[in-house]
Amino acid sequence: MRLVAFEGDDGPRIGVVSEDKVIDVAQVDPAAPRDIGAAIREERLAEIEALAQRAPAEARLNYNDLTFALPVSDPGKILCLGLNYMDHVSEGPFKRQGYPTIFMRTATSLVANEQPIIRPLNSDTLDYEAELALVIGKRSRHLTAENALDAVAGYTCFNDGSVREYQRHTIQWGMGKNFDKTGPFGPVFVTCDELPAGATGLKIECRLNGDTVQSSNTDMMIFPVVETLVYITEGLTLEPGDVVVMGTPSGVGHARKPPLWMQDGDVVEVEIEGIGVLRNTIQNEAAP
Amino acid sequence: MRLVAFEGDDGPRIGVVSEDKVIDVAQVDPAAPRDIGAAIREERLAEIEALAQRAPAEARLNYNDLTFALPVSDPGKILCLGLNYMDHVSEGPFKRQGYPTIFMRTATSLVANEQPIIRPLNSDTLDYEAELALVIGKRSRHLTAENALDAVAGYTCFNDGSVREYQRHTIQWGMGKNFDKTGPFGPVFVTCDELPAGATGLKIECRLNGDTVQSSNTDMMIFPVVETLVYITEGLTLEPGDVVVMGTPSGVGHARKPPLWMQDGDVVEVEIEGIGVLRNTIQNEAAP
Repeated sequence: MRLVAFEGDDGPRIGVVSEDKVIDVAQVDPAAPRDIGAAIREERLAEIEALAQRAPAEARLNYNDLTFALPVSDPGKILCLGLNYMDHVSEGPFKRQGYPTIFMRTATSLVANEQPIIRPLNSDTLDYEAELALVIGKRSRHLTAENALDAVAGYTCFNDGSVREYQRHTIQWGMGKNFDKTGPFGPVFVTCDELPAGATGLKIECRLNGDTVQSSNTDMMIFPVVETLVYITEGLTLEPGDVVVMGTPSGVGHARKPPLWMQDGDVVEVEIEGIGVLRNTIQNEAAP
Repeated sequence: MRLVAFEGDDGPRIGVVSEDKVIDVAQVDPAAPRDIGAAIREERLAEIEALAQRAPAEARLNYNDLTFALPVSDPGKILCLGLNYMDHVSEGPFKRQGYPTIFMRTATSLVANEQPIIRPLNSDTLDYEAELALVIGKRSRHLTAENALDAVAGYTCFNDGSVREYQRHTIQWGMGKNFDKTGPFGPVFVTCDELPAGATGLKIECRLNGDTVQSSNTDMMIFPVVETLVYITEGLTLEPGDVVVMGTPSGVGHARKPPLWMQDGDVVEVEIEGIGVLRNTIQNEAAP
């Protein structure tokens, strides 16, 4: 199943994507879940699928007419991997790390599909990072290679937008990775059954104003989904609706000579094969 | 005002601390806020103060009889400073950073006062870090030196418990700082009017099994509260209930020769002058 979250007249709704249409399940049953994260936590994804199957024609909306919302409106935590594609590690330049490199983003940094990424007043160094994100479906600790993928509810796109100047202020990346509205997330949430196990073998690409600036494959991850989830759950409990963002391949703006920074009006797209396109325009922050 | 959160028969409650007694405000009015974070977000701290003043004698509980809860049950974000006392920077050994070093903790890592800190199966390197924490009271971006303290609702104690082996696995600290139930938080939340502006000049101490292992003063911070909030809000919106944890002085276990790691049954206490004592026992993680 392929889901999107979008703004209805009465707040956010969930839709089931079917080619260029989206089935608005709240039109079939007003008691349908209104947030994909809530549907995962309440184990109601199957109910959404059943509702979509008996949707009347008027519940079929045009994908392109929607105002998108975040696929999970309130992730309990957002764990991000750095340095997880070898070509990106080298361009850093960094050393290959022996374990997944984990940092965090917070909800105030997220942006929905087609909403503006805010280019901050304080720095010109806004950069893109195309990434695969997964959403946890099951409370999990001490996962093993055998059961790790059972913990995943599905996958979506992420753009781990980074303010490089602040990221480099100190040895920790917390500031540069968490500017308000710099982390596009969504729009299509694809359940695991529609993708290869662990979302392996998927082409991943970033385009800036139509030019391909990153192009790789999820097979190039140093720590794939299974290894990453096993490692994280050695220490942390993952909860339904938590998000894990799997790192970016080479081609980021700061590693280019001269550097390529995103500017007001630019259009940045993350596309992952079998999942979809996450598209945002850059907008300068308004003066306070 | 000095508040604690504790478990009542019907779920969490807020109490106003008065010497060794705690006034259970839900006994005065069942519609009183039940969470300090919610009371801050709903701007109901003054209401709590008024309820406490007309509390009957039976609403006065013994502090020592309470089962404590987290002072803010669901912080939107928990931003932590590393390397913020010069003596601790040197013992790292690290270099003095030119800006506040920001990383994050998540809610699954928190522990209430008198609840066990879980010493993980996967590592023997569990360490303590006594820290001042502040809770945000007002949605804030682009704070200035003049108005930064208006954004703070109050202060409490934090123990930034760290699994050093995992913290050193890579160049980012996300894993080692987020093991389940390693971050004690609370119990007494003190509103700003009861402390010096910016919580300056307060003695801060950590004791392990009664021995003083850290002893410093909040005046020794490299980036005090005002500078830290100005820096963070250059990029991020702080929201009511968000928590900022201000870093630890020297004396941590990993810098000792030989290292001093916390063991099953140990008792660790963080005490900050004018705020209170945060006390926890270490408990080995149960086998899965």
